[in-house]
Amino acid sequence: MQELRERILADGEVIGSQVLKVDSFLNHQIDPVFVMRMGQEIASRFAGEGVTRILTVEASGIAVAMAVGLALNAPLVFAKKSRASTQNDSVYTADVYSFTRKEAVHITVSARYLGKDDVVLIVDDFLAHGEAMNGLVNIVHQAGAKLAGAGIIIEKRFQGGGDSLRAQGVRIESLAAITSMEPGKICFAE
Amino acid sequence: MQELRERILADGEVIGSQVLKVDSFLNHQIDPVFVMRMGQEIASRFAGEGVTRILTVEASGIAVAMAVGLALNAPLVFAKKSRASTQNDSVYTADVYSFTRKEAVHITVSARYLGKDDVVLIVDDFLAHGEAMNGLVNIVHQAGAKLAGAGIIIEKRFQGGGDSLRAQGVRIESLAAITSMEPGKICFAE
Repeated sequence: MQELRERILADGEVIGSQVLKVDSFLNHQIDPVFVMRMGQEIASRFAGEGVTRILTVEASGIAVAMAVGLALNAPLVFAKKSRASTQNDSVYTADVYSFTRKEAVHITVSARYLGKDDVVLIVDDFLAHGEAMNGLVNIVHQAGAKLAGAGIIIEKRFQGGGDSLRAQGVRIESLAAITSMEPGKICFAE
Repeated sequence: MQELRERILADGEVIGSQVLKVDSFLNHQIDPVFVMRMGQEIASRFAGEGVTRILTVEASGIAVAMAVGLALNAPLVFAKKSRASTQNDSVYTADVYSFTRKEAVHITVSARYLGKDDVVLIVDDFLAHGEAMNGLVNIVHQAGAKLAGAGIIIEKRFQGGGDSLRAQGVRIESLAAITSMEPGKICFAE
């Protein structure tokens, strides 16, 4: 998506060789009109797949998932990062290591909102090493649901998570795929 | 908002006398079309106030803030609940006690995305004891910005946070205000 690549080049901040901050429109401040356009683009790539649920993980994925859910007219479910005292029914769980926060988090989805009759589109803002995505794929399998694939805003392809998932047969659609980056320079896959 | 009160009565689950779960459409699963309608209703109540930024806190507030931001054509900023390693510029901070999670969390907003020229509308899913809202109001003051008010989906009025803020002169608009509740019974203001 050309508009996204231009926005990343204009506003993105590369820290070291591994971290890309896009806090001005996606991860801290959110440009809602632009996020809607990106959600519509992801939705168009999975139109006709019969998606019944959008699955994401709190927090940055929620705005994108909201946009995709509106475009596909499907409810979204966000995995919660810790088990709150208000959540005590039957849940699917996975452990996810965050390279950004340098800690493992436990993510949970209530069995009420994901089941074997669902066709699930996973949506997230970033795909890097694939830790969060593997956890979400695992949860879809626990639910016995069908996985339509994953729609991602920015894939840091050089970190390998996307290719590993593609090798497992998961369809991954990224709106921008970064092949390498360093401060002042970001290279995209065509 | 009549539709919201009906949805709370149909789907809400009261636990003890203090906790209301609305996980089926707002706090875990999100009904994006309904959330858009609620966001538009909040936006209509603050139309003409010249709002330049929507401020919320991760995670459940993000979907509602996205809807309000679309309706008012303003960017949203979500306060982050812990200081990630990618966030190191100048920040506004507040400490917020969560009665749901029974722990205090540190919330932060980058000074890049909130400043003295902003007119801020705070948006959140719940207003209960007012801990999160007080933290967000504090952050608006730290930024030197003007506070237009707060738009809330569900106010648990009997927990006092809203009245305390109104007494400080903060304009609070709630789409549903609960005056008392117990398992099987929820009473709304007017």
